[in-house]
Parts: sequence; structure tokens; C-alpha cells
Amino acid sequence: MSQELIQRLTAELETIPLIDPHSHINPHAAASTTLADIMGYHYYTELAHSAGLPKDRIEEPNLAPKEKVARLVPKLAELDNTAQYSWLVEMCQSFFDFQDENVTVDNWEALYDTAAAKMAEPDWEDQVLKKSGLEQVFLTNDFDDPLEGFDTHRYVPCLRTDDLVFHLAKPQTRERFQKATGVEISDAASVVDGIGKLFEHFTKNGARACAISLPPDFSPRQVSNTDADGAIAALLSGDELPADQSASLSCFVFWTLAEKCAEFKLPFDLMIGVNRGVYADGVFQGQDLYDKRTSLINYRALFNAFPQVTFPVSVLAHTSNQELVSYSWIFPNVVTNGHWWYSNIPVYIEHDCRSRLQAVPKTKQIGYYSDMYKLEFGLPKFAMYRRILASALASDFVIGRGWSESRAVELGQLVLRGNVESIFNVG
Amino acid sequence: MSQELIQRLTAELETIPLIDPHSHINPHAAASTTLADIMGYHYYTELAHSAGLPKDRIEEPNLAPKEKVARLVPKLAELDNTAQYSWLVEMCQSFFDFQDENVTVDNWEALYDTAAAKMAEPDWEDQVLKKSGLEQVFLTNDFDDPLEGFDTHRYVPCLRTDDLVFHLAKPQTRERFQKATGVEISDAASVVDGIGKLFEHFTKNGARACAISLPPDFSPRQVSNTDADGAIAALLSGDELPADQSASLSCFVFWTLAEKCAEFKLPFDLMIGVNRGVYADGVFQGQDLYDKRTSLINYRALFNAFPQVTFPVSVLAHTSNQELVSYSWIFPNVVTNGHWWYSNIPVYIEHDCRSRLQAVPKTKQIGYYSDMYKLEFGLPKFAMYRRILASALASDFVIGRGWSESRAVELGQLVLRGNVESIFNVG
Amino acid sequence: MSQELIQRLTAELETIPLIDPHSHINPHAAASTTLADIMGYHYYTELAHSAGLPKDRIEEPNLAPKEKVARLVPKLAELDNTAQYSWLVEMCQSFFDFQDENVTVDNWEALYDTAAAKMAEPDWEDQVLKKSGLEQVFLTNDFDDPLEGFDTHRYVPCLRTDDLVFHLAKPQTRERFQKATGVEISDAASVVDGIGKLFEHFTKNGARACAISLPPDFSPRQVSNTDADGAIAALLSGDELPADQSASLSCFVFWTLAEKCAEFKLPFDLMIGVNRGVYADGVFQGQDLYDKRTSLINYRALFNAFPQVTFPVSVLAHTSNQELVSYSWIFPNVVTNGHWWYSNIPVYIEHDCRSRLQAVPKTKQIGYYSDMYKLEFGLPKFAMYRRILASALASDFVIGRGWSESRAVELGQLVLRGNVESIFNVG
Repeated sequence: MSQELIQRLTAELETIPLIDPHSHINPHAAASTTLADIMGYHYYTELAHSAGLPKDRIEEPNLAPKEKVARLVPKLAELDNTAQYSWLVEMCQSFFDFQDENVTVDNWEALYDTAAAKMAEPDWEDQVLKKSGLEQVFLTNDFDDPLEGFDTHRYVPCLRTDDLVFHLAKPQTRERFQKATGVEISDAASVVDGIGKLFEHFTKNGARACAISLPPDFSPRQVSNTDADGAIAALLSGDELPADQSASLSCFVFWTLAEKCAEFKLPFDLMIGVNRGVYADGVFQGQDLYDKRTSLINYRALFNAFPQVTFPVSVLAHTSNQELVSYSWIFPNVVTNGHWWYSNIPVYIEHDCRSRLQAVPKTKQIGYYSDMYKLEFGLPKFAMYRRILASALASDFVIGRGWSESRAVELGQLVLRGNVESIFNVG
Repeated sequence: MSQELIQRLTAELETIPLIDPHSHINPHAAASTTLADIMGYHYYTELAHSAGLPKDRIEEPNLAPKEKVARLVPKLAELDNTAQYSWLVEMCQSFFDFQDENVTVDNWEALYDTAAAKMAEPDWEDQVLKKSGLEQVFLTNDFDDPLEGFDTHRYVPCLRTDDLVFHLAKPQTRERFQKATGVEISDAASVVDGIGKLFEHFTKNGARACAISLPPDFSPRQVSNTDADGAIAALLSGDELPADQSASLSCFVFWTLAEKCAEFKLPFDLMIGVNRGVYADGVFQGQDLYDKRTSLINYRALFNAFPQVTFPVSVLAHTSNQELVSYSWIFPNVVTNGHWWYSNIPVYIEHDCRSRLQAVPKTKQIGYYSDMYKLEFGLPKFAMYRRILASALASDFVIGRGWSESRAVELGQLVLRGNVESIFNVG
Repeated sequence: MSQELIQRLTAELETIPLIDPHSHINPHAAASTTLADIMGYHYYTELAHSAGLPKDRIEEPNLAPKEKVARLVPKLAELDNTAQYSWLVEMCQSFFDFQDENVTVDNWEALYDTAAAKMAEPDWEDQVLKKSGLEQVFLTNDFDDPLEGFDTHRYVPCLRTDDLVFHLAKPQTRERFQKATGVEISDAASVVDGIGKLFEHFTKNGARACAISLPPDFSPRQVSNTDADGAIAALLSGDELPADQSASLSCFVFWTLAEKCAEFKLPFDLMIGVNRGVYADGVFQGQDLYDKRTSLINYRALFNAFPQVTFPVSVLAHTSNQELVSYSWIFPNVVTNGHWWYSNIPVYIEHDCRSRLQAVPKTKQIGYYSDMYKLEFGLPKFAMYRRILASALASDFVIGRGWSESRAVELGQLVLRGNVESIFNVG
């Protein structure tokens, strides 16, 4: 397949300004201040730890940023094959005039200092956004986030609900809930009431999605107020909830969120398949894995019950992608969403991207999101996706189906940008 | 990889006349009479519905064919990326002299009228078969089909048994059974007796296979006549069968079918993995999905118990393909069969086709079937498969292993045609 | 992608001498003596049987080697498409000056005689190793192997433990255990004691790994000595162990092996996913299959409990590969190991190899092992892997990331050879 064709398509796709529909950016400190903010990203700490760097070398209390980088750099040589490492080099080359092929024990310190100087420029955040072609970035906000002190047009709020669904049994979650909503949890009705207040607060402040990550065995179902009342009463009595009541409570809260998404016309991002804390001694954010034995059939009742709610679905395992394609092909309210975490490497993106382009209506595909914690990651991650998207457009549409290049680029524009606007009502 | 090589191989494969070993053709109305017969295919109605067209716009009672097409056409722009849509355009271009790239609100009406005129020609059915290179087409006949009034050489009967295995609890199924066989179901022996009469009727009329589609959790096992007697007695007493008795009855009927396949020397097509009615409000035939958590290990007892029966196996999920490859590699009576439904898109066919060609004896692979409801679909579907097959032959055999092109084409001939003849005893 | 580039990389990789980290070689008869040793490999007997050759034609008692080959050869034409067959032809061409493309009824006898003459040369074993570029070959030794009478530098012992973990309930296993260790099994402590003696014996004789193959539903956990004592007592009383006690005993032995691996600093090879004897009437070694519904989450407790033990993990199903990549990416003690059995065909190796190179630290990947029973198989199997590795290096590193060819070859060297040395402490 012609590399020139792919390059032409990539170049066209690069002209499209982006809206990033999922990130973990802190809008009060969106860009990095040192290279440690970048290399402290769990992708690097967990790979360095996996390659043998002890956790306490990485997470020593009060470790200075420069010393942290100094400890990580020697391990990079053992993971320079990874896609994650290639993002690092691409960031350094694009943002810090880095000329070398690799970050090494010999050149990292100059790089560190250059980066620190650049990052200290007062408009660094704007520079990064501009160079990355990013116009708007979705956030992942705790349910009790005041959503104040930042530009909610640039940084679009998004109500993250893992704590509500899975950690309501913790007293501190209920305290945060009460503080945020003014509602003390006493029964099912109070939960519904308080969640309604959260949705009011979030939508008033420009939120464009409700979102949650879910374990492989989660299977949402409607739970009666009576059953939820029972679980909440048990909870408030201070007992450890038995597994069935705990599951009922999770389902009750989850179902309530879906009802509120319907009422407030918010898409509900489902990120399906993560087991938390599998590697208990892993580094921060480097402990989660999964069980590929999950199925979207678990969401059958949900998808049928809420035809008016759009569910952008991300799956953690490549082996779940075909189900996502098939469910999006059949259910009007299911759309494909990005390439998540362990599936966010080229070989899986290639196949998942091609299957979606071949079988899901083109208006129902959200191509990519960065999932980033710091703004600099948007550039290399979207660049990786664009090259793969261009390759799929070249092979399956321009060559395979005789499409003109401009028609192929239009399809690329839709999945890269257009559908984000229409599905989340932004832009 | 040389596009010219692929084109040469494709051209050679196109000269091979086809026998389509699985379709849903109605032999009394095999070809379409209007474009609504083509666009009313569930692939288009379900995708249009998925893209937002309300079900009642598509399935309004007494909707005229032309109006149905008029309602579907505007939605096509949202699914013109799909492989399914590419079949539509290829059909229009091949059969109706359609010159445009797309079917649009501007050009559909002329296309509709041209198609209607062509389809009204008295030999339209013959024209379609000839242009498609189709010599014989397997049917999917209800167990009580009289198999009369059509050419059973051209349209090969096939005994479809879903109703018997999964719906014998319904009074109307038992009434149809009695009418078709003369046997009233009273106990296990009567079921065996009646099924024997069905096999006599079907084989006398040229049937070449018994077939069934199966849910992901089905696991066949032998059930004693005593247990089956108990289930049937409960059934006839008018009770709703408890789940275990219902499962026993299904297994009893299924096992009886396998015994009759052995007795009458019919292959038993297993189409494994579909959950019916997952999207309850979906359009007609657009409601079924699946749970990828299934395994061919469920069929261990069956494959061991019936060494004399050939089981052409189709799997719904791409993630099941390697098991199919491995089981066909080991079990003499298991053969691979086509690329079914949600796995019938290029990216999955490519991988599944290559894996079979690389690891299953070449005489045990049935390359493709159309699964079509109307005769016009054979052309674009087989054309898609042939292009992918040619590409696999080019990369893995001509280039990868230094085969001559003619030897590669011979392998292609076998999976496209030769094995259909030998496995189903037709041609 | 440039075929010339792939060929240049392949040529470079071919210069790297190999250590094969997993085989079933008998060090007392490592090379073949006739073509029947090669064609009697289960890959050929099971495929010939799958294609229709009756088992009793293949396994007739006292069948002369030449007659066995004479019976297998006519079936080869039906499986000449398979990767397994391509190894046969490559062996014949490389070792026996075979000039034809195929082994047929017309040319096999001359080939047989030529091979027999070559194999009779006194240095045949050395010739094969030299031509294959093999310096060392790991074995699969029964726990009671005396490890005497062969060069343990060339043929590296490896303690295979399936019998201990899954067949301790058999009296003959316990007798072999007593004979090998001098310890009679009477309780949990005696098992631990005896296993310690096995590790002493094996490590003293140069063993470099402990290894086991595991069924899909195995999930290791720590079992108390008390529970193990109970199971062993029940066992010694002559009862058939109930399923839960049998599982406890397996887990106890398995956990003890992991403890000894820690104590003796041996990597513990886990080969995950095989169901034994699925096709009960299959040929020797051609009866095993699998259930793809397994997950590495089953090994969560093990990987957390033994951070000091390296676990080279092989997975039987391609659908398990992404979990292997992800677990190796996170757990410092999990490394990827080869392409096993049903996943050892090009299309699966391609994807699995690419995903590992893209996401696992490069020092944690054991590229390939032969799994061979006879020495001649190393050449075509490693050649197949090298070509695929070269293709992945070309597409994803030289072209995709702009690496120099020499840097790509260095990465290839590491996964082909370097990591075997460092992980198993050999070379």
C-alpha cells in the first residue's frame, strides 16, 4: 500500500482541529511544569517498575521532580520498543526541540532543563493546545467538584460516577455527597434526590457527559426503591453490606444515573472491563488489570430500558471490540468510543478501527480520546491514532472501495471531530 | 503486496461457478421484484434504524415498496462506510447499470424504476444466477415445508431444525409436526419416529443438510428416553416446563437429529452463538446479538459421539474462530463453514480465512455461503469473499511460500467450490 | 512494505545463534533415525487423521517406520496448505537435498532412503544443531528423570511438574516420587520435603526452569498444610478424592513448587489453557484441545505472592494474548513466552508478536521456542518465527518509527536470544 497515499491522508487529517472527548486533565494545572509531570505518568512508572525499577525508588516521599526523572531515565532503554515510549520521544521532539532519537542518561538533563524553561513560559498551556490542534478537552470531574475557576468551554466538565456507584458504602463518600448536594442519604429517595442535584450542578456548568468505569462482572439491572431502602438501612446501621445488597445498591445508583442522563439529556460514557488493584504492590495507577471474560450482553436490560440515552461505550479488551461493533450496529443508542488503555496500542487500534469503519454507521463512531493527565500527551496520542486512521482509510476505502481521497478524509473528519460535536452537543 | 497479483488471482477465482451452501432464499420467489426487496433486507433496515430511523417508519403496515425505499434512502448517507452498503452499490452497478457512486435522494427514484423494469423481465431469476455465477443454492426449509413446486436441483433443500429443538413446547410447533409427519407427540419414541419421517421426506426430495442455529450457552448431551418422556408428559399436561426439563427436551431432540443425520448420511450444519431478541424493539430480524463467552468445548460429547456425521460449523464471533480452526484440525468430523453474520465483514474474514488456510486440512474448509434472502445478494457477497481469498492466497501462498499462481488458484477452487461438492454430495 | 527490507532483516536475524528455551527432545535420542520420526510427530498424524486416515492405520502395533510413512504420505496432499506441512518440506529441502516442492506418493521413497542414510551418519545430531544454529536446547524432564548420560550444557534440564500437580492421586506417581526422592508421601510436610529434594537434584544438574501445563479452569491459591494433610490422608486411605479435595491438593503442590522456585531461583514456566483428552479417539498426542474462556486473573494471587519468581507465561489461545501482554506490562515477574501449539501459526504469531513488541518492556519477552520432539524441527520452526519477527520489525519499527535497521535487529536479537540468556541464566 502506498506510503505516499497514507501520508497525504494523514496530512489532511492533521488540519482538523480536535475536541478531546475524554481526559483526566486538571483544569487548574492542565500543562506540565517539569518533565517529571510527563514521566510520572503511570504509563512510564509502571513500565519502568515492570522492567525492574523498585516501587520505592519511584514513589519515595518528597522526591524532587528532577531526581524522579533521573531515576526513571536509565530504565527507558528497556522499554524503548513500546508505543508509550514513542509518545515520550514525540513529545520531546515536538515541544522541546529535542533532536535525539532517545532519552538517555547522557542527554536527559539538558532536555529536562529545556523543558522546564519552556513550561515556565506564561502561555505554555496555550502553546500546547495550539500545537496539538486541541480546541476543547473533556474532563473527568469528581461528583463533588465545584467546577469553578476554569473556562468550562475549553475544559468541558464531565460527571464521573465511580464513587457513587461503587463506594457509597464508605462514610467519606456519603459525607462528600451530603456536602455537595445538601442531601443526607437516608433512603433510596434521598439518593435519587441528591443525584438530581448533582446533574443540575453539572449541566448548569456545561457538563456534556456522565461517565463511569465498570468491572468485567458488572451487569446493570433495575432495583426497586424498597430493595434499595433495605440496603441503605443496613449500610447506615454500620454493617458491612453482604455481597447481594452491595450489588443491589450499585445497580440502584447506576440505574438512577441512567434515568438522570435521560432527564438531563446527557450521554452516559461506559468504560467497561477494568478490575482495580489486581497488582496490589504496583505503582500508583499501575495496579489495574482485567478479566477478558465479560460481555455486552450484561448491558442488555440497560440498552433496552433507555432508548433516549446515548451510551458511548469503551471496552478495555480487544476481544470485546467485535461485540461493541455488533451492539452499535444494532442498538441506536450504543456508539463506539475510542481505544482504551490496554487496547490503545497500534496493533489493536488498527483492527478495532477497521472493524468499526466497516460495520457501524459512520455517525455513531467517536474515533479517539486521549485519556491524558497532562496536556502534552494529546499531541502524540492523537498523532498515533491519525496515522492508523489514515492507513485504514487508504487500504479499505481509497484502495479497497475506490473512494476519492477527499471522501475518505470526510469520513476521517467525522470520526475524529464531527461525531464528538453531534454526540456530545459541543463545538 | 502486488495489487496486480491479487487481481490476477481474483480474476481466476471469478471463473469458478458457485454452489452456495447456505441461504434463506424462497425458491418460489427467489429474485427481487423491486428495490424494496433488496433494501428491505435486515442489513439495511437495522443499520438505518441504528442510525436513527424510527422503526415505525420502516415497518408501517401496508407500506408501499417505493415509499419504503424513499424512507430508507436518506439514511444511507450515514452508513455509506459499511461493507453492507458497498454490497448495495455493487448490486445496483452490476444488475441495473447504475453509474453513480452512491444511492442518494437525487438518484434513487430512477434507479428504483430501472430495477423494477429489469426485475419484471421473465427470465430475471436466470439472469441473476448467470451473472452471479451461481449454479445451485441451498435453502433453509422449515421442517414442515412440502418441498414442492420448485427445482430441487437448483434450490437444494436443507432441513432447518431450530423450531424442533427450541420450540417444541409451543402447541403450534407440535401441531405443525403432527401435520407434517402424521405423528402426534406423546412421548420420546414418537418424537424419534416423527423426526425419522421428516428425514425421509427431506432426503427423498434432495435435501443435502440438516441445520440449526444455537445460543451461546447450548451444550448438547445425550438424554435418556425416560427423562425425555418425563419432560414431554409435563409439557402435554400444559405446564410451563422448568428450565432443566426444557433443556433436557432440547438436548433430546438435538441428539435425535444427530442420530438421524448419521442414519440418513446428512451433514449437520451447526451455527453457533446467537442470542435471539436481545434488542426487543429492533426491526424485523434486527434484534439478535450474542455473548462471546461460548466455547466449542460445549460440543465435546457430540463430536465424540458421532464420528460418522460431518459437522460444518459456523461461529458468530470472530473470537470463536481459533477454536473452530483447532477443533477442525483435530476432529475428523468438524469442518469450517463460511463467515457468518457479524463476522461477515472484511477485517474478520481476512483473519479467519488466513487462519483456516494455514492450519486446517484443505479438504475440510467450506469457504463461504451467502446467507442471502434474495438472489441478488449472492454476487456482491461472494465477490467480497473472493477478493479477500485472493489476497490471502497471494500473501501467504504465492509470496509467503513460493507457490505458483495456478497452485494457489487450485486451493481457492477447493474452498470455494470443490469442498461444497464433496462435503454435501452435490454438484 | 518492502520485501527487500524484510529479507535483509531476516538475513541478519539468521546469524544469531539460538538457545531453544522449551522442547520435548529426548537427549539420548535427540535427532531422527528415519523419516518416520519426523512424520510420526503428532502434527502430521493428527492432521492426516483429521483428513480421514483411520487411527488404526497410523497406530497399528509393530508398524515398520517405512510402512508408517508410506501410509501417511498419500494424505499429505490434503494438508499441503498447512504451516505444519511447510515445515516438513523445509526440513526435507534443508537437510536431505530434497529438490521437489511436495512430498508425494511418487517421490517419498527416495526421500526416505536419503534421509535414513543422512541420519545414519555418526555426527548427524551435530550436523542438525549446526545447520539450525542451535547452541542449547531446553528439555522437558519428568520429575524422576536421573538426568544422566547426556551433556546438560547442550541439553538443559527443566523440571516438568504436571504429574506432581495433577496426578499425585495415582499410586504409580507416588511410587515414582518415593523412588526419586527417598520420601514416602504421608502428609503435606513430606510432599514439601520431597519436592525440595527434586529441586536439589535438578538444580545440581543444571536445570534452568520448572515448568507445567495447566487447564483453562485452574486457579492457583495457597492451601494450608492442615487442608493438604486432610486431602493426603483421604488419598492414602484409598478413596477417590472428592473434587474439592483434589483441587486443594493440586493447589498445595503447585504453591509448593512456586515456593521452591523462589528458594532455588528457578523461573516457573506456566503453559496455560489446555484441556487434555477432549477427542478421546484421537491419535497419540492429538487429543487435546481447549476452552478459550480462561483468564490470567486466575493467577492474580500467585503473581502477587511470588514477586521474586519469574513466570514465563505461554497461552494456548490467541484470544488470551492481550491479557498476557497486559499482565507482563504491569507485573514485574510476568514475561511473555513464545507462541504455543494452536497459536503457533503465522497469522496468530504476527499479531501476538506485534502486540508484545509494542507494549511489553523489551527485556521481558522470550520470542520463541520450538516445542519440538525431534531436533530437525528447530530449523523450520525458528525460520518461520524469524520471518514474522523480521516483518514486524520492518513494519512497526523501521518504517513505522524510523528506526535504523541495526537498531531493529538489536531488538530482534534480544527477543530471539538475549532474553533467554538473562531470564533463564544460561548461555
